[in-house]
Amino acid sequence: MRIITISREFGSGGRELGKRLADLLACDYYDSEIVHAVAQKSGMDAGYVADTLSNHGWQDMALTFRGTLSSPTYFQASKVALLLQQKKVLEEIAALGKDCVIVGRNADVILKDYAPFNIFVCASTEAKVQRCQERAPEGENLTEKELLRKMKKIDEVRAQTRAIMSDAAWGQRSAYHITINTTGWDIKALVPAVADFAGRWFERKK
Amino acid sequence: MRIITISREFGSGGRELGKRLADLLACDYYDSEIVHAVAQKSGMDAGYVADTLSNHGWQDMALTFRGTLSSPTYFQASKVALLLQQKKVLEEIAALGKDCVIVGRNADVILKDYAPFNIFVCASTEAKVQRCQERAPEGENLTEKELLRKMKKIDEVRAQTRAIMSDAAWGQRSAYHITINTTGWDIKALVPAVADFAGRWFERKK
Repeated sequence: MRIITISREFGSGGRELGKRLADLLACDYYDSEIVHAVAQKSGMDAGYVADTLSNHGWQDMALTFRGTLSSPTYFQASKVALLLQQKKVLEEIAALGKDCVIVGRNADVILKDYAPFNIFVCASTEAKVQRCQERAPEGENLTEKELLRKMKKIDEVRAQTRAIMSDAAWGQRSAYHITINTTGWDIKALVPAVADFAGRWFERKK
Repeated sequence: MRIITISREFGSGGRELGKRLADLLACDYYDSEIVHAVAQKSGMDAGYVADTLSNHGWQDMALTFRGTLSSPTYFQASKVALLLQQKKVLEEIAALGKDCVIVGRNADVILKDYAPFNIFVCASTEAKVQRCQERAPEGENLTEKELLRKMKKIDEVRAQTRAIMSDAAWGQRSAYHITINTTGWDIKALVPAVADFAGRWFERKK
């Protein structure tokens, strides 16, 4: 079984790379599917789950709720519970024994016993801003400043969440097999190069 | 003309990767050749040039000579002069108009107008220590602790020297097209994957 994991900076095109890679390799692809499975298991709304996992850091849950009747501990516990559910979903996916590409969710750390090929995707700030602007959801009209703040925030949460699970920091080059800068690439043209690289990695292990 | 530059952590196998890549692509390869050319141009000993460029940071030249009659400024000026000579040698290499692989020397920054494909090579600390121990020069018997100190020192000098030339920090992922972790690879098996990746990059630009 070959598992390829993709970690990425927000706006770098990591998700598109993952999707196209799974298409090229004709294997399973997991991204928001995981959030839906976690929501189902927890009996919670998928939007709430996605928001809790992606948009709220650990510190700011404490800040948001400090001084109110809600205990910050409750919300942190709720996030921890969702992360544990997510871990379980990832393990179930791996237990299927099928080749797959998994985007995000710290799958590289959680599934390390399956010896996945781990990719980190980055891009220049300019390229990420441009990509986000071109692909903004309907009705979202963030200024460049707001977009930069959002990018920074989401990447910070990713780094924080990873820090709970691994000593190797999010984005730290030696924690991944390869770090790819998508700046200047058409993702379509990049995909076969990545597939070839990963294929040689798995071949070399035989 | 296709120029591939390789920046690397000490002990990561970046030089071997560069040499084998040039062999596979049947193109020119530059590494210590550059130091020899700089030495020749400066009328200095190649060993002295290599040592000055690689082993002495900016701060520690000042520290070493502070309090003696020698002015630190003189030694820093001498290092700057050697770096300028090195820049000139790199520009002469590029002006030949031939495909090549260049290891180190901040060639990615100096030759940026030639749109090189820029690779950063890293590895886990354990892998780097093992590699250095296996390939230690005759008569060098460093303890692991000494080796770690040497690795750290050389990489610090590389980072300092780069900082003089570029805003993008040494090793910063978005400053390179690809960052490759050689841990677990036989470099021989890795080379075709890298050649393929770089080839697709140059092709995509046409």
